[in-house]
Amino acid sequence: MPRPARSTAVEPPASQPAAAKPEVRFRMRVKAGDAIPVGPGKIALLEAVAATGSITLAAKSLGMSYRRAWLLLSALNGSLKSPAIGSSVGGQNGGGTALTPVGEDLIATYRRIEATAAEACAADIRHLLRMIDG
Amino acid sequence: MPRPARSTAVEPPASQPAAAKPEVRFRMRVKAGDAIPVGPGKIALLEAVAATGSITLAAKSLGMSYRRAWLLLSALNGSLKSPAIGSSVGGQNGGGTALTPVGEDLIATYRRIEATAAEACAADIRHLLRMIDG
Repeated sequence: MPRPARSTAVEPPASQPAAAKPEVRFRMRVKAGDAIPVGPGKIALLEAVAATGSITLAAKSLGMSYRRAWLLLSALNGSLKSPAIGSSVGGQNGGGTALTPVGEDLIATYRRIEATAAEACAADIRHLLRMIDG
Repeated sequence: MPRPARSTAVEPPASQPAAAKPEVRFRMRVKAGDAIPVGPGKIALLEAVAATGSITLAAKSLGMSYRRAWLLLSALNGSLKSPAIGSSVGGQNGGGTALTPVGEDLIATYRRIEATAAEACAADIRHLLRMIDG
């Protein structure tokens, strides 16, 4: 079992630092040749734009330069049939930035895929975690 | 649809360079704190050891130094309850290296998880690929 049983009476004292529990991360990428039009970084950035309404704030919240965020979003828009981010994208101090319905759909689909994958693979994931000394 | 139909009579001539078709990659990692005891790199390395029977050849086939391969396999063994690689691991010109039943199980489980995930998410993956201009 990956975790020590927490219900026994011989639990270690709370002052003992807990070992990091192993956990499973699913990441999905869309590859097209060498390019990765959709992956976890761009989805996280889209989510940050949706949450903050601003590329500047989204970049800041992810510890990323404005320039890098802008380039990623621009590449994303360019790789989609219709853009994920509204074209009213202002400058660094420009007006708010909003996701298009396609952008909202992209996030929802991506996160649903991760959740569906984790659920469908639950038994094998437990099996794998049991192999790990965590 | 992400791919042009291949069964029509109006297929482009074979000399025309095909655009890179977007495809989906699932990658699963086990995280434990900052460590990644199991991820795609270690699984690929294990598979290469299984295929070649040698850490040296496995490292070579993945364009990796022997030292790096050894360190990765050693870390993997250390993070498992019982090792994935036999302890008869020789030096750079040493004898063959074989996976343990745990190593075989680890690869099989990992690849089954990827396949199950892709199958469970097929409809959403198609939906996502349809958004991409590929």
